[in-house]
Amino acid sequence: MEKERVHVFESAERVLCEPFIAPTDLPPYDSSHMDGFAVRSADLQTASLHSPISLKNIATCTPGQPPYLRLTPGTTARILTGAYLPEGADAVVPQEEVTVEGDQVIFTSPVTPYQYVDLKGFDVKRGQTLFEEGHRLKMADAVLLASMGVGSIEVFVKPRVGVLAVGDELTDDFGETRRGKVLNTHTHLVKKLVQSCGGRFIFLGIIRDDPIALQETVQNHYNQVHMFLSIAGSSISEKDVSSIFTSKQSTGAFVHGLKLQPGRVGGFGFIGEKPLILLPGLIMSTLNVFMFLAYPAIRRLLHQQPLFYHHRLKAELTETVRFRKYHDFVKVVWVSVKERDDKVFCVPNYGESSGMSIPSRSDGFIIGMPGVKEITEGSKVWVHYPPTL
Amino acid sequence: MEKERVHVFESAERVLCEPFIAPTDLPPYDSSHMDGFAVRSADLQTASLHSPISLKNIATCTPGQPPYLRLTPGTTARILTGAYLPEGADAVVPQEEVTVEGDQVIFTSPVTPYQYVDLKGFDVKRGQTLFEEGHRLKMADAVLLASMGVGSIEVFVKPRVGVLAVGDELTDDFGETRRGKVLNTHTHLVKKLVQSCGGRFIFLGIIRDDPIALQETVQNHYNQVHMFLSIAGSSISEKDVSSIFTSKQSTGAFVHGLKLQPGRVGGFGFIGEKPLILLPGLIMSTLNVFMFLAYPAIRRLLHQQPLFYHHRLKAELTETVRFRKYHDFVKVVWVSVKERDDKVFCVPNYGESSGMSIPSRSDGFIIGMPGVKEITEGSKVWVHYPPTL
Repeated sequence: MEKERVHVFESAERVLCEPFIAPTDLPPYDSSHMDGFAVRSADLQTASLHSPISLKNIATCTPGQPPYLRLTPGTTARILTGAYLPEGADAVVPQEEVTVEGDQVIFTSPVTPYQYVDLKGFDVKRGQTLFEEGHRLKMADAVLLASMGVGSIEVFVKPRVGVLAVGDELTDDFGETRRGKVLNTHTHLVKKLVQSCGGRFIFLGIIRDDPIALQETVQNHYNQVHMFLSIAGSSISEKDVSSIFTSKQSTGAFVHGLKLQPGRVGGFGFIGEKPLILLPGLIMSTLNVFMFLAYPAIRRLLHQQPLFYHHRLKAELTETVRFRKYHDFVKVVWVSVKERDDKVFCVPNYGESSGMSIPSRSDGFIIGMPGVKEITEGSKVWVHYPPTL
Repeated sequence: MEKERVHVFESAERVLCEPFIAPTDLPPYDSSHMDGFAVRSADLQTASLHSPISLKNIATCTPGQPPYLRLTPGTTARILTGAYLPEGADAVVPQEEVTVEGDQVIFTSPVTPYQYVDLKGFDVKRGQTLFEEGHRLKMADAVLLASMGVGSIEVFVKPRVGVLAVGDELTDDFGETRRGKVLNTHTHLVKKLVQSCGGRFIFLGIIRDDPIALQETVQNHYNQVHMFLSIAGSSISEKDVSSIFTSKQSTGAFVHGLKLQPGRVGGFGFIGEKPLILLPGLIMSTLNVFMFLAYPAIRRLLHQQPLFYHHRLKAELTETVRFRKYHDFVKVVWVSVKERDDKVFCVPNYGESSGMSIPSRSDGFIIGMPGVKEITEGSKVWVHYPPTL
């Protein structure tokens, strides 16, 4: 994958192409945790109510100034929260614990060294490895880098994913749906998924059921993308141009048919050096094959662990799920996650794999591994989340 | 809140301003779940291997055509997956179960009515309430609406949140940080948070420690925003212009000081009819007051339940958390969520509330309610997630 340098505040959701080593301590100097007075603790060792000690206030330290001042014995400086301590100072006394008379500040108790001081490097130590290669930056990470003076950072370019929507029946025109055409909906969900993985979605258009049209589109955009996804046309009839094209043209492995249900007519091949993943056209199969093939592939391009989920949590299954067929497959059941009685539950959303309402109702999916014939009510199962829905 | 109409494919992450009632059945007609032949099941009641029944193939039904055809007794039609059944047909026989001879199709077994048929309305029934007011649409919801022919939808406008970064020490110039200035970092995290809640972030600039400057900025942008957030200057010193300004100008309730730790110098007032929320300047306090005041306020504007978290999950605490002070406060501890031995754990990230690395290392937060002095190792606690970090 190519690399590019981006402004640190544009780096959120981008992926690091090398480990990040802290270039500096954070904070870079000792700083005050309170509004009060910076002191040398040695000066106040004998201070008490009966024998107060008076120090001369020689300056005010505010945030936004580097330490420009040195406290000599017998002096103090007014200091605000977040300001750097003057050299020589090793503690801060809150303002409500002192009396100020002119330029004299009166202290009535000794002070522990480093009291109310945020020590240099307490947050991040110079040389510390903060992030590994393949780490996807959060905005909170970007803000941390910026705090260390990092203005820009090298990241992987976004993998460019060329998406083909295949089928004579498809249209982008709502008017045409009244004449029986099918709206090109799946592309929009795939777009959102690609973008949420950190990829760049490139729509290559609605392709008619014609292998030549498919071939021309793939050739014309070959240099522009890192990967192709076709939606629909992945089954085994004479109209399934995605699988026909890929089976004929693949220059590497060609896999057609997955032990994944729904999703068994998915597959992939290679056009030159670039993968083409066959997403089936029924929405639940589109989604499952995206999560089990396209999602880990995009992660892999970004040097991330090729997981089939974004994150996951444990939940209690509300009813027994039985798999009547495809026992040796990975079976995927989408679920809604609910809270009740201080617990997390998941409710299976059954339905045909053409059910457009299932992704809408679902939060994530549970899986039945090969050999599993049922998952019983009350089981604590992993609910796997896609990067978005 | 004002409303606006947006294209259905631009509606993801927008919030419905009224319930959504399904305008049509989905699918709108019975459709085929297989590639095969549409039949009238009554025609095949007596079909068997020894006494096959032959029907005349009168057409091919492909997806993208409305039902334009009527099967009369003795006829069948080739049908592809997703195509609508012709009128009169009530079942589909897979292509691998028949023999085709010219225009005759030979069947050797009877067929159950509705076999391999996706019934009209199986997915969504016309008149069904799909979403309530205040529902935040996912792309999967938008795709479902589009499938029902919905081209645009009414949503609330995005709440416009005016953000003021307060402090003489702040700069947006990385060069100036080398001379001791403090980079305006928090604004970028707040921007991301506001946007993730469905708000529109409007930066009103870095404001010097001068109540007049603050007042002028607020006045100049009063009509442009629904809500103000100030970052920093919320404490009690003479330099804390956000709290000084708000205490003097608030036309409604003025709350300063929260039983929230970190975050106790947060607060809010009203400038005219618009809330101004005081986010403290130390990053963990900024975050906590955002989550406990600003986040529910933005949700409320969008007619959503005013929660202080986006979602939450249960995790086992890896070590006892003790609260030494502020026992009658809500105490917030940010945590990292980890998986081990097929379980979910959370690890507290201690540190000063100025620690810029804490949000970077954290996934969410746990809370100690008023009265709670410790949460013991091994407790199953809720980890609350912000909408982003």
